[in-house]
Amino acid sequence: MKLLRVGAKGQECPALLDSQGVVRSLANIVRDIDASVLSQEGLASLRKINVADLPVVADVSRIGTPWVGCGKFICIGLNYADHAREAGMPIPTEPILFTKAISAITGPNDPLVMPQGSVKTDWEVELGVVIGTRARYVSQAQALEHVAGYCVVNDVSEREYQLERGGTWDKGKGCDTFGPIGPWLVTADEVPDPRKLTLQLAVNGVLLQNGSTETMVFGVAELVSYVSRFMTLEPGDIISTGTPPGVGMGLKPLPQFLKAGDEVRVSIEGLGEQCQRVYAWDAALL
Amino acid sequence: MKLLRVGAKGQECPALLDSQGVVRSLANIVRDIDASVLSQEGLASLRKINVADLPVVADVSRIGTPWVGCGKFICIGLNYADHAREAGMPIPTEPILFTKAISAITGPNDPLVMPQGSVKTDWEVELGVVIGTRARYVSQAQALEHVAGYCVVNDVSEREYQLERGGTWDKGKGCDTFGPIGPWLVTADEVPDPRKLTLQLAVNGVLLQNGSTETMVFGVAELVSYVSRFMTLEPGDIISTGTPPGVGMGLKPLPQFLKAGDEVRVSIEGLGEQCQRVYAWDAALL
Repeated sequence: MKLLRVGAKGQECPALLDSQGVVRSLANIVRDIDASVLSQEGLASLRKINVADLPVVADVSRIGTPWVGCGKFICIGLNYADHAREAGMPIPTEPILFTKAISAITGPNDPLVMPQGSVKTDWEVELGVVIGTRARYVSQAQALEHVAGYCVVNDVSEREYQLERGGTWDKGKGCDTFGPIGPWLVTADEVPDPRKLTLQLAVNGVLLQNGSTETMVFGVAELVSYVSRFMTLEPGDIISTGTPPGVGMGLKPLPQFLKAGDEVRVSIEGLGEQCQRVYAWDAALL
Repeated sequence: MKLLRVGAKGQECPALLDSQGVVRSLANIVRDIDASVLSQEGLASLRKINVADLPVVADVSRIGTPWVGCGKFICIGLNYADHAREAGMPIPTEPILFTKAISAITGPNDPLVMPQGSVKTDWEVELGVVIGTRARYVSQAQALEHVAGYCVVNDVSEREYQLERGGTWDKGKGCDTFGPIGPWLVTADEVPDPRKLTLQLAVNGVLLQNGSTETMVFGVAELVSYVSRFMTLEPGDIISTGTPPGVGMGLKPLPQFLKAGDEVRVSIEGLGEQCQRVYAWDAALL
């Protein structure tokens, strides 16, 4: 299933995308796409519905984040060997964790608003792994049982804040609108091998990231297991699994960063596409 | 006011501590101590109550975290000059930010459960600043208007995970039970000068941290203002403002870390005291 939420910000309704690409309402079936829906029982219950009976959603002009109740937005750094090289950093021997503020989360096509005075706002297409059931010290063999599904994430990053302002990377990762998620959460049964997905990101139509999850240093099962040894993963938490090469700070001969008016398209095979327009700081756009 | 929540985990009731130290129930007044209560309007409304009319809470055997709905647990690193020196790190020229997982939050006297195999679990008494109203690019002059109140935090830290396992500090900060908060949230009006508070932490009766917020590198208003430029602070978010000297890894001639059976007492002048018993890993204690 492809689960999504459509409607104005704060007023999204639960929905699913049917096999013909039509958005159908789940508003009579579930209150929202929340932790109860993300559990194995919740998803099994949804699978019993006759999709053709669900009403078609007339207004799909805005897509929100695919679920509510994300308590932790954990990211994995330098998880593609090629990206580590372009960033001039060693390939990690164990996963690097950092955190995005949950207030950074936005819908997949919402405005990407740069912080005041930012000159190094950068992009990162990433595979998001959405937790469906609590994971605490889970083995790699059992890790995928805790995954509800997958989604596209743009791990937007302010490189000056991240790398030149002291302290951890978190400072450059959690600005408002820096966490577009969606368009949908694709349940794990529809992603038989999360290590064989093409990831792409284009700025103003120019393809800048074109990678595959095949080249991840640590795979999804390994990451879920690993993170679960340092913190308990709760339903609705997301792990964003790192980005392939082609981010702005790694471009040659000169780095390239986002500027107002740019259009960013972010996609992962089978998981849909995001499109963000970039704006200079304007609180009215949030 | 001193606001708190009492009762079994997940079943806490809202309460306040009256001037005689008696816990009185707010269950007939508010649903819970949440974002709506933490706003200036919510707190003003509570102040109108005749406290003597509130029923006394009979069972105060467990105190929970003082409010619900913490979306971000932001910490400030090396914010006491003396602590930076003991950690062998330079005094920061601007605040260092890192993040604790919200799943680490526990009541002030709940068990402190070390992660599996941990040998470097350490303590940090800190002043917690609780956000009452949204703060986004707020000036230092206006920052304190966004603060609902203050509380005691023990920023429990696994130093091997934090410093020796690659990546950011977040890896050693978010383990389950690593975020005791409370016993109460003391509203800002009762803390006229948050830069004049004594902080203390004792392990097994031995006073190991004994500092004052006077020696903070960056004060509360400066921190709220600073953080609000990197992420929007929402009601219920907390900023933990760093620790004075005396953490285990800084002790001479040898560092000292927590072991099962230890008792940790954590207090800040006017904000109450926490007491945690330390246990080896046992999921049943969570």
